[in-house]
Amino acid sequence: MHLSKLFIPLTKDLPAEAKIKSHQLMLRTGMIKQSSAGIYSWLPLGYKIMKKIEQIVREEQDIIGAQEMLMPTIQSAEIWKESGRYNDYGEEMLRIKDRQGREMLYGPTNEELITDIFRSSVKSYKSLPQLLYHIQWKFRDEIRPRFGVMRCKEFYMKDSYSFDLSDEEAKKSYNKIFYSYLKTFQRLGLKAIPMSADTGPIGGDLSHEFIILAETGESQIFADKRIFEINLNNYDLTEGSLKKMREDFTNIYAVTDDKYNEKEFKEKVSKENQIITKGIEVGHIFYFGDKYSKPMNCLIDDKNGKKTTVKMGSYGIGVSRLVGATIEANYNNEVMKWPKSIAPFDAVIIPSFNKNNQEYLKKAHKIYEDLKNQNIDVLLDDVDESMSNKFKKHDLIGVPYQIIVGSKSDNNNFEFKELNSDSKMLNFENIKSELKKLNCLPKQKD
Amino acid sequence: MHLSKLFIPLTKDLPAEAKIKSHQLMLRTGMIKQSSAGIYSWLPLGYKIMKKIEQIVREEQDIIGAQEMLMPTIQSAEIWKESGRYNDYGEEMLRIKDRQGREMLYGPTNEELITDIFRSSVKSYKSLPQLLYHIQWKFRDEIRPRFGVMRCKEFYMKDSYSFDLSDEEAKKSYNKIFYSYLKTFQRLGLKAIPMSADTGPIGGDLSHEFIILAETGESQIFADKRIFEINLNNYDLTEGSLKKMREDFTNIYAVTDDKYNEKEFKEKVSKENQIITKGIEVGHIFYFGDKYSKPMNCLIDDKNGKKTTVKMGSYGIGVSRLVGATIEANYNNEVMKWPKSIAPFDAVIIPSFNKNNQEYLKKAHKIYEDLKNQNIDVLLDDVDESMSNKFKKHDLIGVPYQIIVGSKSDNNNFEFKELNSDSKMLNFENIKSELKKLNCLPKQKD
Repeated sequence: MHLSKLFIPLTKDLPAEAKIKSHQLMLRTGMIKQSSAGIYSWLPLGYKIMKKIEQIVREEQDIIGAQEMLMPTIQSAEIWKESGRYNDYGEEMLRIKDRQGREMLYGPTNEELITDIFRSSVKSYKSLPQLLYHIQWKFRDEIRPRFGVMRCKEFYMKDSYSFDLSDEEAKKSYNKIFYSYLKTFQRLGLKAIPMSADTGPIGGDLSHEFIILAETGESQIFADKRIFEINLNNYDLTEGSLKKMREDFTNIYAVTDDKYNEKEFKEKVSKENQIITKGIEVGHIFYFGDKYSKPMNCLIDDKNGKKTTVKMGSYGIGVSRLVGATIEANYNNEVMKWPKSIAPFDAVIIPSFNKNNQEYLKKAHKIYEDLKNQNIDVLLDDVDESMSNKFKKHDLIGVPYQIIVGSKSDNNNFEFKELNSDSKMLNFENIKSELKKLNCLPKQKD
Repeated sequence: MHLSKLFIPLTKDLPAEAKIKSHQLMLRTGMIKQSSAGIYSWLPLGYKIMKKIEQIVREEQDIIGAQEMLMPTIQSAEIWKESGRYNDYGEEMLRIKDRQGREMLYGPTNEELITDIFRSSVKSYKSLPQLLYHIQWKFRDEIRPRFGVMRCKEFYMKDSYSFDLSDEEAKKSYNKIFYSYLKTFQRLGLKAIPMSADTGPIGGDLSHEFIILAETGESQIFADKRIFEINLNNYDLTEGSLKKMREDFTNIYAVTDDKYNEKEFKEKVSKENQIITKGIEVGHIFYFGDKYSKPMNCLIDDKNGKKTTVKMGSYGIGVSRLVGATIEANYNNEVMKWPKSIAPFDAVIIPSFNKNNQEYLKKAHKIYEDLKNQNIDVLLDDVDESMSNKFKKHDLIGVPYQIIVGSKSDNNNFEFKELNSDSKMLNFENIKSELKKLNCLPKQKD
C-alpha cells in the first residue's frame, strides 16, 4: 500500500474530547471517526488491526473445538421475558419497536437467543458437550459513553456458550476456555491475568475477568506478583493439565476492587509480592449452570432417559475494546509499537524526499515491489514531507519495522529500525530474510 | 470435522413456512434458524458458506484497490435530514429513540454516513479517486418478510462508495466496479448478467442490476441471449478495455420488467435470440453524481483551487442473499451441489456402518486424518445410519465430493463421487491428488 493512497485522515491536533491515550491516538492516526456519541466508524487503518485481532480470537476458539455461527443483532423481547431479564436489564438495553409495534431490542449479549437455538436443536446427552461462539456487534446504551472504543455504545464482541450435562462436566468446559483465553491474549502480545470477579447481570456464582495492566485502567488491581510468572507453556488441553492450571492460577491472590478485602490481601500476600495497580478488562467468563436453561425449559435427555436442564456458561472477549486496550498497554512517550501479530503492516519504507533527486524514491519503489512479491505486507511512505515529520508520524502509526532510504543508504544497504530500538545498516537481502522470519509467525489463515 | 460433532440440526420435514427451495433447504440442513419474523441466526453450516462468499467478495474489492473499513449499524437521524432522505425513506427504515430521546436508525444503506466521513477527511483533488467499502449488517423493516434470507429484515451486505472529481472520472470508477462484480460472481460459480435498472431511493440516473437466472426469481427478465456469451476473459482493468466491456454489455438488450418496453424488445432482439425468464438480483450499482455531496456540502478543491462537489456512486452486493440465490440456481431434483469455491467442505467421507465390523469406520478415520494433514477440509460422516439415508442427507448438505468407504472399497481403493455424476473406483493417492488440485483454486487468503 502506498501511504498517499491510504484513506488515513491524520490530524495533528490533540482532540479535546479524548481523555485517554488510546482514544487520542486512534483519532490522530485516523483509525476511527465518531459518527454519533459513543458510536464509531472504523477507518481502514483501525479496521485492519481489529480484523487481525478478530482472526486470532477466532483461530483460538477453533482450536478448542468451538463452532462459529452468527446470531442477529436485533432480538425479540419475548425470549428476554422468558428468562426474566427483560425488566432487570436497565436502560442500557436499546429497546426498539418495529413498524408493527413488536417489542425488539439490540442485543447487549446473547444468553437467551443461544438457549432458544439450543433447546430446539439438541435433545440428547449424546450431543454434549457443545461449544458455540459468534463474533457480532452488540449495543449498550451508555448514558455517558467515553474513552473512545473502550466504553462505547456499539461494540464488537466474541461470545461463546458452553452446554454440558452436569456441573462437573461444565467446569471442564470452563477450564478449557480459561486456558484458551490466556493463549489468545498471549498471541495478541498482551499479558492478561485471570481474576476472580462478580457476575453482575449475567449471573451465576463462578466468574473470572481477564485483566491487562495499564495505568489508565478502570479497575483497581490487587495481586500477588507471582501470578505474572506462571508459564502457560507448562499446560496443555488435557483434562488433568487444565485442572492443575486453574488451581495454580486461583491459588495465587489476584482480584479487582469488586472482590478486594484488605485483611485477606495482607494475610495471603507477603509484603514484597503485593502489587496494587490498575488494569483493563479484556475478557470475562461466567458459569451460571441452569440460570437460563431452567426458566427457558432447555432440557436434555440424560443417560437414563430422564430430562435435565442443560448446564451453561458464557465467555466474552471484547474485540473492538482490545484495539484500545492494546494501545493503552503499548503506547508510551509518543511512540506506539503494535505487536507483530496484529500490526497494520509488517514494515514501512521511508524514503527521503528531494526535489532535485528522485533516486531515493525510485529505490524505495523498487524494494517495495520486491517485498510485496515475497508476500510481506509493506507500506511505502510516498508523501512529500520532511524526514523528521515522517518519523513523528510513523511513531504514531506504529508499524513495528522501518526501512529508511536516505543519505545513509548506499547501493543495497539501508537503515533498518525496529521501533523503540536503534537502527542498523543492513544489506537488503538480510532485511528481507528478517521480515520473512516474522512472517512465519502464526498469522491469519482462512 | 466429524459430522456427529457438527452443530447441524437437520430436519426431515419440509417446513411449512418455507415457500421457495432455498428457504426450505436452509432450514432442512440446519443452515439457519429464524429468531423472529425475517430475522435469522446463521448456524455453523450456513455461516461457513456465507463467510466464504464474503471472503471472495472482499478479495475482488481489494484487487481493484477498494479499501475496507466499517461503518456502524446504528446511525444518527441528523445526516439523513441533511440529505433529505429521512422523511422520504418510508416505514422500512427502523427508527429508534435512544435513552436520551435522540432520533437514531438502523442503517438500511450508507450514502449519508460515508459522505459525512469523506467531507471531514478529504479536501483536495489530489486524494482522488477514492474507493471505500464495508461489509456490514443492514436492516429493512419489511412489512411481510418472506423467502428466508432472500427477503429478510436483517441482511449482510457489501457496499462500496466511489469519489471522483468529475462525471467523466466517475464513469471510470463505475466501469471498474462493473467489471469487478462480473468477476466476483464468476468466482462464486454464478453467471450474473448486468441489466439497466431503475435507481429507486438511492437516486441518480445510471444504474445496473446484476441478475442470475432462476425460475423462482422475483424479477421478470427480457434479454438477448447473446449477452450470456460475452467472455469476461477478453477484458482487463485498463481504461480502454473497461470502456469496451461496458459498451459490449450495454449494446445488447437485457432489462428487468421495470425497464421493459415490448416494442423496443421486439425491434432490438431478433426472434431466435429473445429470452423471457426470471431472475434474482445479486448486485446493484448506482451513479448519482452530487445527489448527496451537494446537500451535505462535501466539497473538494479542484486543480485551480476552486471548490466543487465530489461525484459519487454506490455499489452493493447482498452477501447473505447470495447464499439463498446460489441455492436457487443450483438446487434441483433434491440434489444441492455447492460451487467448489464456497462449498462448506472440500469432500465428505461416508463409511458404511456395520455393528459387527468396524473396519469401514476405522478406515474412514484413517483417510480423514490423512486428508486433514494435506490441508483438505473434509467432513467425516460418523453418524450411525443406513447408507441410503446418508446419501439422501448428503445430497442436501451439498459437499461436492464424496469418498465412500463400503463393501465396494478394497485395501486402498474407494468409490469417489462428484455430486450429480457417477462414482468411480480410485486409488486413495489419486483421490488425494484430485482434491489437492481443487484446493489450488483461488481460495480465502488473509
